Amino acid sequence: TATAGDGEARLEVNMGKSIYMVSDGTGWTVEHSVNAALGQFEHCLVDRGCPVNTHLFSGIEDVEPLMEIVKQAAKEGAIVVYTLADPSMAESAKQACKLWGIPSTDILGPITEAVASHLGVSPSGLPRGAPGRNFPLSEDYFRRIEAIEFTIKQDDGALPHNLTKADIVLAGVSRTGKTPLSIYLAQKGYKVANVPIVKGIELPKTLFRIDPEKVFGLTISPVVLQAIRKARAKTLGFSEQARSNYSEMDYVREELESARRVFAQNPVWPVIEVTGKAIEETASVILRLYHDRKHRCSMPRISKLY
Amino acid sequence: TATAGDGEARLEVNMGKSIYMVSDGTGWTVEHSVNAALGQFEHCLVDRGCPVNTHLFSGIEDVEPLMEIVKQAAKEGAIVVYTLADPSMAESAKQACKLWGIPSTDILGPITEAVASHLGVSPSGLPRGAPGRNFPLSEDYFRRIEAIEFTIKQDDGALPHNLTKADIVLAGVSRTGKTPLSIYLAQKGYKVANVPIVKGIELPKTLFRIDPEKVFGLTISPVVLQAIRKARAKTLGFSEQARSNYSEMDYVREELESARRVFAQNPVWPVIEVTGKAIEETASVILRLYHDRKHRCSMPRISKLY
Ligand SMILES: Nc1ncnc2c1ncn2[C@@H]1O[C@H](COP(=O)(O)O)[C@@H](O)[C@H]1O
Ligand SMILES: Nc1ncnc2c1ncn2[C@@H]1O[C@H](COP(=O)(O)O)[C@@H](O)[C@H]1O
Ligand SMILES: [Mg+2]
Ligand SMILES: [Mg+2]
Repeated sequence: TATAGDGEARLEVNMGKSIYMVSDGTGWTVEHSVNAALGQFEHCLVDRGCPVNTHLFSGIEDVEPLMEIVKQAAKEGAIVVYTLADPSMAESAKQACKLWGIPSTDILGPITEAVASHLGVSPSGLPRGAPGRNFPLSEDYFRRIEAIEFTIKQDDGALPHNLTKADIVLAGVSRTGKTPLSIYLAQKGYKVANVPIVKGIELPKTLFRIDPEKVFGLTISPVVLQAIRKARAKTLGFSEQARSNYSEMDYVREELESARRVFAQNPVWPVIEVTGKAIEETASVILRLYHDRKHRCSMPRISKLY
Repeated sequence: TATAGDGEARLEVNMGKSIYMVSDGTGWTVEHSVNAALGQFEHCLVDRGCPVNTHLFSGIEDVEPLMEIVKQAAKEGAIVVYTLADPSMAESAKQACKLWGIPSTDILGPITEAVASHLGVSPSGLPRGAPGRNFPLSEDYFRRIEAIEFTIKQDDGALPHNLTKADIVLAGVSRTGKTPLSIYLAQKGYKVANVPIVKGIELPKTLFRIDPEKVFGLTISPVVLQAIRKARAKTLGFSEQARSNYSEMDYVREELESARRVFAQNPVWPVIEVTGKAIEETASVILRLYHDRKHRCSMPRISKLY
């Protein structure tokens, strides 16, 4: 209702500027693009100088809910960013925003048009959830699920005899982000195994027998690692005793030093510095090297055939 | 070199039209956008009527490699799609493509400009990997990692006493995609537990004691489930005997029927149809319901504060 809307609107304005994200599909594409753009405003987001609220509306396939959303956006003084496959829906969004006097950005349209003229084929104009369309149970689909299941089973040094079956093997001390990184790569279809390097514990022999071109070492600054471990020890409710050993600076340095020695003995393994990197950034570096090693292209790239 | 380049070029042209994707960061944003756009051409991608090659160039922070890539794109008759935070890099990409006579699309620029005028703040123009910038070890970062680690441990009905700690609990028969779905949601920061429904095996009691608003049932068409199970049984190398039981139509139907009964006895649980849906589509449906139940908003949405 209008009253509830107004109430919400006032609340939102106080909390920061709003961005309305609308998709006829999942909304993950528009969310991803807005996130990237917001990275350009970190300088004022971090100190709360310009708080931002995003609101994601997914599965919007009809013009009525679309108009409701634009109206609400106008009340809140929001901008609207959208991915709408049906050209008449995209046009409706644009016109409605114009009418209500709010800025709008089409994420899907420009790139789809560019691809259409490149291929010389018209876009279907069908949202991914349109009736009659069906997600294909492709080889790629099964490969990804297998990669995820493999990676989960393989986590944290489990089943070292399976290292041979992995596409990518990560080695590093505790809290270098091996697990989230493995999972991120698995989602992209790679079978990943990770091997923890723990001071005083011998590494599995298989690690040195498998193709060294698929092993990646992870390293991190001791100061940052200590901070992460302290946070970790708190979450896990380690005792004071265990906690101090795990995150004590001398111990952290020694463990990193033992990792450094392992890496030095295996010079084929690239050593990736993860300090200050998000999981997806480390993943990007690893995949670039991985594909480069596989294809030895003149320019490092990741290629896919559709 | 020019010769190698030419060789590559001829090869590529034969294999389909090329799309060059360039980012100063990971490239995942431009890849995501191009993927969404390619969804609009599935009608001709599937039957190979218009094969497409994508090539991802990540971490391009300097103008020299950028110019090399554009030159190579021109040789291959590719289009260039880019996300470049530094406005002078973006301008260089645009001008070079113009000069070489190839189409180009800027993914980051338009949305960044829209956000800039909305916030009344200038974008930093710094790529995410720029010196001095550092990925913050924020609460959100730790929360995500915790969610991933929780979800892995909880997979496939493990540790049922921990169901209370999950944000989301998925219940469904084998091969409804519980594991990849759990992992997808975990990456978004939700702690997920999944409980397999197996004919003749009692469900853990905790499942019926926890807040029913966080439980989601998954269902699927028997025909599609059988197809998935057959593929699965092959991969796992099940014996003929075990295989036929697991993927036999009568058995599949009975198991789905037993799941249906469980769902009927727990009418608060939404039942999500996964047939023909990609993992990220099911995830989107679940999160929309999840947030709607939590916030009881007039319009279902997922809101975030930056
Ligand atoms: N496989 C696909 N087929 C058709 N359209 C798609 C496909 N994937 C994504 N899209 C469209 O691309 C836009 C972004 O998708 P989403 O990320 O799900 O919001 C939406 O307009 C979708 O309808
Ligand atoms: N946290 C961030 N800070 C600054 N720029 C970012 C951030 N995240 C993404 N970007 C920029 O957004 C674009 C897409 O990023 P990516 O998905 O990593 O290719 C690139 O131009 C990045 O430099
Ligand atoms: Mg979208
Ligand atoms: Mg990108």
